[in-house]
Amino acid sequence: MLFHTLRRAIYPGSFDPVTNGHLDIIQRGCKLFDEMIVAISTNLEKTPLFSIEERREMITEAIAQINIGSCRLLVDNFQGLLMHYAVARDAHAILRGIRAISDYEYELQMALMNRRQEPRIETVFMMPAEAYSYVSSRLVKEVYQLGGTIDGLVPASIEVRMKQKLRREKG
Amino acid sequence: MLFHTLRRAIYPGSFDPVTNGHLDIIQRGCKLFDEMIVAISTNLEKTPLFSIEERREMITEAIAQINIGSCRLLVDNFQGLLMHYAVARDAHAILRGIRAISDYEYELQMALMNRRQEPRIETVFMMPAEAYSYVSSRLVKEVYQLGGTIDGLVPASIEVRMKQKLRREKG
Amino acid sequence: MLFHTLRRAIYPGSFDPVTNGHLDIIQRGCKLFDEMIVAISTNLEKTPLFSIEERREMITEAIAQINIGSCRLLVDNFQGLLMHYAVARDAHAILRGIRAISDYEYELQMALMNRRQEPRIETVFMMPAEAYSYVSSRLVKEVYQLGGTIDGLVPASIEVRMKQKLRREKG
Amino acid sequence: MLFHTLRRAIYPGSFDPVTNGHLDIIQRGCKLFDEMIVAISTNLEKTPLFSIEERREMITEAIAQINIGSCRLLVDNFQGLLMHYAVARDAHAILRGIRAISDYEYELQMALMNRRQEPRIETVFMMPAEAYSYVSSRLVKEVYQLGGTIDGLVPASIEVRMKQKLRREKG
Amino acid sequence: MLFHTLRRAIYPGSFDPVTNGHLDIIQRGCKLFDEMIVAISTNLEKTPLFSIEERREMITEAIAQINIGSCRLLVDNFQGLLMHYAVARDAHAILRGIRAISDYEYELQMALMNRRQEPRIETVFMMPAEAYSYVSSRLVKEVYQLGGTIDGLVPASIEVRMKQKLRREKG
Amino acid sequence: MLFHTLRRAIYPGSFDPVTNGHLDIIQRGCKLFDEMIVAISTNLEKTPLFSIEERREMITEAIAQINIGSCRLLVDNFQGLLMHYAVARDAHAILRGIRAISDYEYELQMALMNRRQEPRIETVFMMPAEAYSYVSSRLVKEVYQLGGTIDGLVPASIEVRMKQKLRREKG
Repeated sequence: MLFHTLRRAIYPGSFDPVTNGHLDIIQRGCKLFDEMIVAISTNLEKTPLFSIEERREMITEAIAQINIGSCRLLVDNFQGLLMHYAVARDAHAILRGIRAISDYEYELQMALMNRRQEPRIETVFMMPAEAYSYVSSRLVKEVYQLGGTIDGLVPASIEVRMKQKLRREKG
Repeated sequence: MLFHTLRRAIYPGSFDPVTNGHLDIIQRGCKLFDEMIVAISTNLEKTPLFSIEERREMITEAIAQINIGSCRLLVDNFQGLLMHYAVARDAHAILRGIRAISDYEYELQMALMNRRQEPRIETVFMMPAEAYSYVSSRLVKEVYQLGGTIDGLVPASIEVRMKQKLRREKG
Repeated sequence: MLFHTLRRAIYPGSFDPVTNGHLDIIQRGCKLFDEMIVAISTNLEKTPLFSIEERREMITEAIAQINIGSCRLLVDNFQGLLMHYAVARDAHAILRGIRAISDYEYELQMALMNRRQEPRIETVFMMPAEAYSYVSSRLVKEVYQLGGTIDGLVPASIEVRMKQKLRREKG
Repeated sequence: MLFHTLRRAIYPGSFDPVTNGHLDIIQRGCKLFDEMIVAISTNLEKTPLFSIEERREMITEAIAQINIGSCRLLVDNFQGLLMHYAVARDAHAILRGIRAISDYEYELQMALMNRRQEPRIETVFMMPAEAYSYVSSRLVKEVYQLGGTIDGLVPASIEVRMKQKLRREKG
Repeated sequence: MLFHTLRRAIYPGSFDPVTNGHLDIIQRGCKLFDEMIVAISTNLEKTPLFSIEERREMITEAIAQINIGSCRLLVDNFQGLLMHYAVARDAHAILRGIRAISDYEYELQMALMNRRQEPRIETVFMMPAEAYSYVSSRLVKEVYQLGGTIDGLVPASIEVRMKQKLRREKG
Repeated sequence: MLFHTLRRAIYPGSFDPVTNGHLDIIQRGCKLFDEMIVAISTNLEKTPLFSIEERREMITEAIAQINIGSCRLLVDNFQGLLMHYAVARDAHAILRGIRAISDYEYELQMALMNRRQEPRIETVFMMPAEAYSYVSSRLVKEVYQLGGTIDGLVPASIEVRMKQKLRREKG
């Protein structure tokens, strides 16, 4: 009988809110890693729509709806340098989704900088389904706030949250 | 005690010849997968510089020189559709190197087509060291045949092979 | 005798101010559409240089100087989702200029999101003359405010407006 | 009552064979133009898989299966310069599909050269559905010849033709 | 004996702070130009980390450490339009580093706009070493402020300055 | 009185035939270098339209028509590695035109490989006028052979040569 190394990946992001594109990557990552930590970055200075606590809840609700096989999924948040967090969590890899459109060069730039910070941890890129090639949290919020549909771009539970949040803000 | 799934990746290519960029990706892949199959594609119609047999030997020699930890590495060749081969070998993933320069769009196009052929197997992209961002087998051959240096771009054992091959051809 | 469908396109933008690149696209669009609505978006939160009213006047003045054949041109402004506006105006298409440099990926991302909002309305891309491949409202303002020349990048009437505006602001 | 200009577009290509990506663009073009000519280019020196006559039949069969509203569709072939053909056919525009992946720069280069040949005729770009963002005739043939599936990438009638063609060639 | 034109280039930037990528380009530029002016732009509205005076000192210290042959190097700062400054300094060229990743299109757009401002002065692009292909002042600051390493990305003297600056700000 | 280093650049290419885009870069290069060698590469295996001798004549005729100030221009051809040739000619730089469209990544890849061959010689990129952003020798030949106009894309003397060459070939 063979024993293999347990492999753990960090999937970092701001997830404000989590989209179907993120969930698609989480499912794909779960085919390759034994454990995945969905790690909400709390560095960004700009005011987010959802608090860290809300985002944790939203991700937790959303991943309860998807099939992740025997993969162990954790939701967490971190402050400071991603690679310090990754070392502290004993991760083997950083997982990043890479879309046909618009984020390739930024992703490579970050991956090279992260490698310099911690060469033992690799960045791994996976591609979401074509249907999500244009979906970003920013665009989802923008469209929703203008009254557009985000059906199919975020899970139903997230759409409910967005409706509540924006009603609260307007009300 | 925990038992984890053994994870196997295919690293396909023509490897005519294998370069330091390929070996860099093999080492990185070995951090994430328990087994890797370096799989020489034999579909390409254009006449290669090295025969399949030579390329197998060259890869085998080259990987004997690098540190791959506990990763199990196999060298193989295949004909026909990559995804059929990957299923036959019970692989979880296709590994592809992705360079800052020049192959991003082609890689995404192939990955999407491969996903349609076999959705259970994911394509995973990793980045070679910056120093290899411009190295390709084609460019290595071109430069060498014009009398240029390929020192640092291929392992010493490959340079010896190239010298022999080109002397034989000219002689 | 044949009767054909009247075709109406929306040409959206912030037009702060309208440039020769915009006017070039308007002329090209007029070859393909029976009616075009130049539609100023009023969603952008950042403070524009010119008010909506000024921008409407400036576009109206500028299009009076160009040859648009039998095309019917309207200048309007809208708030909220572009696709809701396009439906309300019974448009067949959204027209977008696409420059060799710098906005391709953003344009595709928006076009796919807009298609999801309203699949009946197509986004159509046309290319401005090479001479305008680097002209944007933002760059025109930046250069002008630093004392540079914008001759040939905007119509003469717009340059007059910019001079007045910036004098007023400094004076 | 208003009478409008009938608008005619050329949709050029080698269509060896026609794919669902091409048909998707044809349907989108039919929303904007009163007449469309699907024009098979016969300039390419490399040996095609299907003859001009076969390609005309295949396109004719395929478009019989799709909804094109009141748009008048013609299938034709041409030799020589596309823009000479477009003038001879009294076209207003050249229609080109533009995919998120891989053909943007080539398309712009051709469009600028075509504009120089005949400035009165505009090139118009439309985007296929995301699902076709990686589909090309070349890739379809390559995959099919290696035994892969092209289900969903070409119409059923085209798949039958490919089966016949490749059996004939092998038999 | 031949007398040749002395050639002077401007190397503009915000240099907040100067990085090893900048110094690499300065050294390369010194092979081609007799005189180079490292010119700090003071237009940018956003609050910089270092004052103009500090940046001048930092560049001066850093270039004292590198080999620039017989090239005459000056450090200066300017306000207003780059091309006006370049004319005032009687420069023949603007030198810009161009990285494999991320700034190509912006650079071309600026170069075309600058050429329109002053056609006699050419923009010249050179490539930094691969190792600096992802280094930018912005990323260096971001990483350092999160506690990451910038060793090898900036000269030692700059790292000392950053430590002092950030300690002062926190203390 | 000051004495400055004479600076010599190689402008390599296949020039089959020389275009206005090439001549534009030659003029720009002449502003920066004291001597320029237009160097025809004779490595390419594919059959060119014009012989080396014809290409030398054509470039010589064409540059006689343009203003190059006091710059010394030579026309030459070389075989083998560009960087060996550049060293033999004691050049300081390789000059390459870089167009907004289509050759950026290939150019960077070659420049990095050339730097490895000979680190003392720098590659310098300059941008042609926007009007030439889509002009390539290949496209010029393709269009001309199909009966299109190349007026404004090549000098008149080159157009005459192309007419003669193609008549001879057909006659």
